[in-house]
Amino acid sequence: MDAFFCPNRVAIFGSFKEFALGCGVIQNMLDLGYKGRIYPVSQSHERVMELDAFPTISDVQDKVDLAIVITPSATVPHIVEQCGQNGVKAAVVVSEHFAEAGKEGARLQQQIVDITIGTGIRVMGPNTIGVLNTHNGLVSNPYLFDSHNLRKGSIAYSSQTGIAAAQCQPLADRGYGISKMCDIGNKCDVDEVDIINYLADDSQTKVITMHLEDVKDGRRFLTAAKNLITKKPLLILKTGRSEAASKASASHTGSLTGNDVVYDAAFKQIGAIRVDSWQEFWDIPKVFAAQPLPKGNRIGIISYSGGAGVAAADTAAKAGLTIPVFSDSTLEKVSRLSPRKAGNPIDLGPILSSAYDPISAQEKALVDVFNDVNIDCVAIGMYVGRLAPKDYMIELFDRVIPHVSKPFTLWLYGPTLAETQELARILEGRNVPTYTEFETAVKALGAAAQYQALRNY
Amino acid sequence: MDAFFCPNRVAIFGSFKEFALGCGVIQNMLDLGYKGRIYPVSQSHERVMELDAFPTISDVQDKVDLAIVITPSATVPHIVEQCGQNGVKAAVVVSEHFAEAGKEGARLQQQIVDITIGTGIRVMGPNTIGVLNTHNGLVSNPYLFDSHNLRKGSIAYSSQTGIAAAQCQPLADRGYGISKMCDIGNKCDVDEVDIINYLADDSQTKVITMHLEDVKDGRRFLTAAKNLITKKPLLILKTGRSEAASKASASHTGSLTGNDVVYDAAFKQIGAIRVDSWQEFWDIPKVFAAQPLPKGNRIGIISYSGGAGVAAADTAAKAGLTIPVFSDSTLEKVSRLSPRKAGNPIDLGPILSSAYDPISAQEKALVDVFNDVNIDCVAIGMYVGRLAPKDYMIELFDRVIPHVSKPFTLWLYGPTLAETQELARILEGRNVPTYTEFETAVKALGAAAQYQALRNY
Repeated sequence: MDAFFCPNRVAIFGSFKEFALGCGVIQNMLDLGYKGRIYPVSQSHERVMELDAFPTISDVQDKVDLAIVITPSATVPHIVEQCGQNGVKAAVVVSEHFAEAGKEGARLQQQIVDITIGTGIRVMGPNTIGVLNTHNGLVSNPYLFDSHNLRKGSIAYSSQTGIAAAQCQPLADRGYGISKMCDIGNKCDVDEVDIINYLADDSQTKVITMHLEDVKDGRRFLTAAKNLITKKPLLILKTGRSEAASKASASHTGSLTGNDVVYDAAFKQIGAIRVDSWQEFWDIPKVFAAQPLPKGNRIGIISYSGGAGVAAADTAAKAGLTIPVFSDSTLEKVSRLSPRKAGNPIDLGPILSSAYDPISAQEKALVDVFNDVNIDCVAIGMYVGRLAPKDYMIELFDRVIPHVSKPFTLWLYGPTLAETQELARILEGRNVPTYTEFETAVKALGAAAQYQALRNY
Repeated sequence: MDAFFCPNRVAIFGSFKEFALGCGVIQNMLDLGYKGRIYPVSQSHERVMELDAFPTISDVQDKVDLAIVITPSATVPHIVEQCGQNGVKAAVVVSEHFAEAGKEGARLQQQIVDITIGTGIRVMGPNTIGVLNTHNGLVSNPYLFDSHNLRKGSIAYSSQTGIAAAQCQPLADRGYGISKMCDIGNKCDVDEVDIINYLADDSQTKVITMHLEDVKDGRRFLTAAKNLITKKPLLILKTGRSEAASKASASHTGSLTGNDVVYDAAFKQIGAIRVDSWQEFWDIPKVFAAQPLPKGNRIGIISYSGGAGVAAADTAAKAGLTIPVFSDSTLEKVSRLSPRKAGNPIDLGPILSSAYDPISAQEKALVDVFNDVNIDCVAIGMYVGRLAPKDYMIELFDRVIPHVSKPFTLWLYGPTLAETQELARILEGRNVPTYTEFETAVKALGAAAQYQALRNY
């Protein structure tokens, strides 16, 4: 499996005309800083983007670890076979029109499976965007994206769809980092179990979020997931719940989605954390990557708005968190700062608009709540705008962070999307997990508490 | 009630020192283009922001319709009383520290209630941001916001919290318009029923979204809401579901939130549409403001990604929509454009990356799906980025919109938040309701179909 994510020598099969997908892969790898060797394989080019090209894989006088194949589906089995015979360890088949596209495609896909058995080569896909590794600059994605700004980090994303790929997602606009991404596509060989087993031991990955439309082998999956969860959290977005969705899935990756109730029970049993939307898929893992685990499930809720606090308390209750009363000492201290709004949830709105030195007042209130013996984690909802502009908020968090050892999440909102997003990006660079909805910020802490409870158990 | 939203003469009570809240209200009204007369009432200023100020309300030699009061709580009852005695019809009490803040506050609030009974003046608040009317430039909000860019439209938002106010929300960054907004705060006099009755007959409002922590009088509320729903849709975000949230609500607006199950049943009975998050609160009404109602509940799902289509189908099933098979004629036509991905959901991804003239190919596919006799409404998920940049998407929708008479919603995503948001703003200006999650885009159509079913019934 390491050949998929950490190859030193990569061969690329595809069209290398200007703007063609083969060139896209090479460009993305150069942009992302890939340091290994790249071998374009082409019968019509001798040079591709200042690299020597080779007519076939056997002409490459080097030990290739990974092949990336983006050629018409009918040509793929032969290419994979030649790769296998020439000692290539792994192939990502980006090409589509296989099992997802009917009988002839299914036949071609079966040929690939037979080749993996015959030669020992492992295959990811077909019908996939494939792999991305921020730490070594590897990427099989043929669609150009703004890879310069992609941050190295510890979250791994695995999906069964190209929508979760870098060219579709504003990853570079965000401040948190990614370790690895993959799209397992039609899963003719490499499947979710291989990914789980590999990432369980990947030292660069602290948390895995996995999108699944189906599971190929329930027993193997449960065993692998259970083992992974003893080491790091596993978040799952399982789509294809409804009958119609199930049919759509069959035509899209050729897989059967199965009964949702069964999945739900199985995920619960092994301690996987189920997320419910693409937004949660991307954002919930941030709390695991950036923050310690909470010691318990008692949440403190801080906001600038009573109404937002009430809504957050609703979410907290649903997410399995309790909302304790602050200790007398905290109540006394914060009452001095924000009289009559000092309960949990606490509303710092009055400080924002009236305190003499609102940054110091908020700093004190935040630190008091964090240090409360009744509190294990804190969800903060804060405004960025005229009363509390970006630099003011950065100063506030720069002052608070050194005093904080409990996990927290931050919902940021304000009248200007650009300023809110820029602040989120900056704070995420300082390990503050930020959210565009208070509900998601609270739910993330619920997920962290759920994982910690599992470890205690 | 008209005095709250359409006053011709407004008196403002507050501090008028530089940057004080009284000046904030005036600045916001000037920025929003208020054409009526503004009378600052102040014993310490003769002129405020180039306006004549008056020591008391009885010194104003004009018939004042609305008073906006932002003075310390202890001074409020006297001010409201004087306003009532001088024929002012309505007062927004922005000041806080009333029933939400304990016994003494509750006593002051009761004094205000007594004055409304004694003098006939109506009071919104206390503890509120109050009113906003884009159509005449009225605003009682004392916090500055980017009001120049606020668009006139037909969505009314009512809340029990300042978080739903213009200084906190990126309303100016969005392309859809608002008719009226209000925060009913502690509801000492004007409550949700007054707002519902007023907006039911407001010709500038096509849809109402209401945040509630509690309902003061269930029977009156149900009667008023039922009547409104015969005329226009009512969406409700009811927070304070959990016990902890309920306690928080009491300390924030002094209200009791009650049993959530009872609310849920009541909302269903009258045909109110319940929304589940602040994001839905803001975004679901857009489909009602910008699109016709669907004739039935049969959805077509179009996206650039099989995986996204599957997830959207899940949401559609949960939202009460059915996902029919396309008619043979549609299947035949779209199969020519996107072979083997032509089912419902349909995946246009292959067109995007391979068609000779992708805009025309997508235009045809979209129009074919819209015209399908089996389809009542369409949810579209589309990427904006290198393969389909902003101007390309604008051209596509400019071509498609003239051929479309069925309602649709659009989920936009892409690698750059700024470009995605800019395109959303532009398309919303052309009556395309855009969403940041496919789930919400589908749910909005579910809400529209639900409302249409109620009308048929």
